[in-house]
Amino acid sequence: MRPSLHIVKAGGHVIEDPAALQGLLAGFSALAGRKILVHGGGPAATRLAAALGLETRLVSGRRITDAPTLRIATMVYGGLINKTLTVALQGAGIDAVGLTGADADLIRSDLKPGFGFAGTIREVRADRLATLLEAGLVPVLAPLTHDGRGQLLNTNADGIAAALATALADRYAVTLRYCFEQPGVLRDPADPSTLIPVLTAYEAARLIADGTLSGGMVPKVENALDAAARGIRVRITSAAALDGGTLIQPD
Amino acid sequence: MRPSLHIVKAGGHVIEDPAALQGLLAGFSALAGRKILVHGGGPAATRLAAALGLETRLVSGRRITDAPTLRIATMVYGGLINKTLTVALQGAGIDAVGLTGADADLIRSDLKPGFGFAGTIREVRADRLATLLEAGLVPVLAPLTHDGRGQLLNTNADGIAAALATALADRYAVTLRYCFEQPGVLRDPADPSTLIPVLTAYEAARLIADGTLSGGMVPKVENALDAAARGIRVRITSAAALDGGTLIQPD
Repeated sequence: MRPSLHIVKAGGHVIEDPAALQGLLAGFSALAGRKILVHGGGPAATRLAAALGLETRLVSGRRITDAPTLRIATMVYGGLINKTLTVALQGAGIDAVGLTGADADLIRSDLKPGFGFAGTIREVRADRLATLLEAGLVPVLAPLTHDGRGQLLNTNADGIAAALATALADRYAVTLRYCFEQPGVLRDPADPSTLIPVLTAYEAARLIADGTLSGGMVPKVENALDAAARGIRVRITSAAALDGGTLIQPD
Repeated sequence: MRPSLHIVKAGGHVIEDPAALQGLLAGFSALAGRKILVHGGGPAATRLAAALGLETRLVSGRRITDAPTLRIATMVYGGLINKTLTVALQGAGIDAVGLTGADADLIRSDLKPGFGFAGTIREVRADRLATLLEAGLVPVLAPLTHDGRGQLLNTNADGIAAALATALADRYAVTLRYCFEQPGVLRDPADPSTLIPVLTAYEAARLIADGTLSGGMVPKVENALDAAARGIRVRITSAAALDGGTLIQPD
């Protein structure tokens, strides 16, 4: 039987919200066995950019990772958020190791044309991640990867979590959890009582088509469905209730 | 026979000087076998602090790591410098993994009283470093450690390099190199032809006492002598000439 592996994706904002951070630490600590935390960006990067007088560059409505933006992402995602989470986990008795996809060549990406220094994932070094996990370590991944030729690339954290889950599914029974500010997928984002406990691919397609699910929830559900279709157990939930929220199921 | 291990300490300024970075990458790549790179801070942190309107706090002439300064160190040392070096090494075919002392609990420190969030090293996890080295990885260490209770601590990079060398000397035949802007220890800092090829503890004490060696060179030579007294081969040199410079010898 494959040993179990928990992959949790959380927003980078948790480092600035003591209650959210405590909730995440408590929930993540309670997960038994091997585990990986993937974190996103957060308001710290936006605030640092603003304090430095940098503007977010949009080209045809797309957010572009230009060189100064990548520099800020490297500082905030690779440094501030990653190390703050790692040292907090260490303080909670979890043997965390904070990494980007460039470290140990864990994740290689290709440049995403038209988005600047942004990457779409090409390859995950599952062997390396397994070495870390089997050494008793808990990898904490920042949303940065590399092209293998010396260039860091800004990379979507939800996509990293899904790619890790897929790459490690041969070796481990993976449970993937996307944590965010809401208790799960809601029919009405303003009303937590409209939580959908189980969401199938068929139902998801219907709710996206009729506009019930919109905005940032759409790519989140699509990433989750992709992983579920590969046999991975997926939940969309809050950091405070890792075994609650919405269970995503292929049809 | 113990396998050889090269530990190179370089200044964080190299990431902003393309010639220095190329020199370091070339020299570091040429070192055969197991190796570790330890980097310091650099002008990027001072510039970021200035851009954010933070002033360096001095108390009785001591530089104090207050909370905003530690935040900048975490971004610049743990993020910008560490990941820029790591991805450049990856691009040069070296399987680097960028870490702080908090990652994998590698280095624990005690708070250095009166210096704010600054640490003096208590313990190095040599077993963990050996696991990484034996997996074919090249650790790249930022000048940050932790107290094991959830607090990052700013930590002198020369001291980290010496502590790693000492902790790993049982398992490996360690060569420790302190790289800086000069070709080695000079009798006259303005004249490279006054390089001292071999410096003994006796001679060093004399040159410190008569003022020939002063400023930042004094702790550098003292760290080097400490390590040499523990049987470690130590050089103070430039990144461009890793086998040149000044060989430090105990009496």
